[in-house]
Amino acid sequence: MTDDLQFAPRGANHDIEEGVAFAPKFDANGLITAVVTDIASGDVLMVAHMNAEALKRTIESGEAWFYSRSRQKLWKKGESSGHVQRVIELRVDCDQDALWLKVEQTGPGACHTGRRSCFYRAVPIGDGSQVTLEFRDAEKTFDPDAIYATPADK
Amino acid sequence: MTDDLQFAPRGANHDIEEGVAFAPKFDANGLITAVVTDIASGDVLMVAHMNAEALKRTIESGEAWFYSRSRQKLWKKGESSGHVQRVIELRVDCDQDALWLKVEQTGPGACHTGRRSCFYRAVPIGDGSQVTLEFRDAEKTFDPDAIYATPADK
Repeated sequence: MTDDLQFAPRGANHDIEEGVAFAPKFDANGLITAVVTDIASGDVLMVAHMNAEALKRTIESGEAWFYSRSRQKLWKKGESSGHVQRVIELRVDCDQDALWLKVEQTGPGACHTGRRSCFYRAVPIGDGSQVTLEFRDAEKTFDPDAIYATPADK
Repeated sequence: MTDDLQFAPRGANHDIEEGVAFAPKFDANGLITAVVTDIASGDVLMVAHMNAEALKRTIESGEAWFYSRSRQKLWKKGESSGHVQRVIELRVDCDQDALWLKVEQTGPGACHTGRRSCFYRAVPIGDGSQVTLEFRDAEKTFDPDAIYATPADK
């Protein structure tokens, strides 16, 4: 089903920045960065990567697909956990090398550690020599061991 | 001034995900992805990259520094435009390979095209074969040609 959708070739800078042709820039590994925010809270849930196929499937299905660099495979968010992400809006940035997905996160959370968001620790600003992370909004909303069949599915 | 701050070595997965040691993972090019959101609106303003030095300067100064891949240089956001970003909160994700900066964006916008956010175009979901971008929140809030000395400063 994903054979039809074609991306535009990369053109001149002005066209990339001010045009309506979708010409996503994939890096040397064929990937583009995707930021996922929660449509309700506005919080960043996760940062992941897409290859061309994941991006096409996301556009066509309205659910978020990614490419896992560690597992080196196409991956539908929620395929193991059931916590799929419905894409309410998909945006692309000025030079078309980053994507922003505003999603409705189904289920209790997006993070494989069992939390709503992957960003549950803060780095204190202005500290001198040592950095000690501070947990924030870090309550576990589900038990990952009960959700994922194997650690590799997380 | 940035000699003091040291990052922790990457340890076991559990420590990286559940610990308080800050062990950011830089990629093969020495970079880590940084997502910048507006503390007021919650919108994603930009996605950029930091090397270790940019991250240290950001932590120590409370203003956002990045590394420009195209210009191959350390870069303080706003150094040309004056539109600096004050970091209200800095977060790191579960596997510590992405950063989220909640900033107070000074000046009229973050994007070198003259807009508040770099994400001013939407990719329609569910369209068949052709993707035509749609401008959203795309009003220019400043004239980039009046702000930047040369196109390379953008």
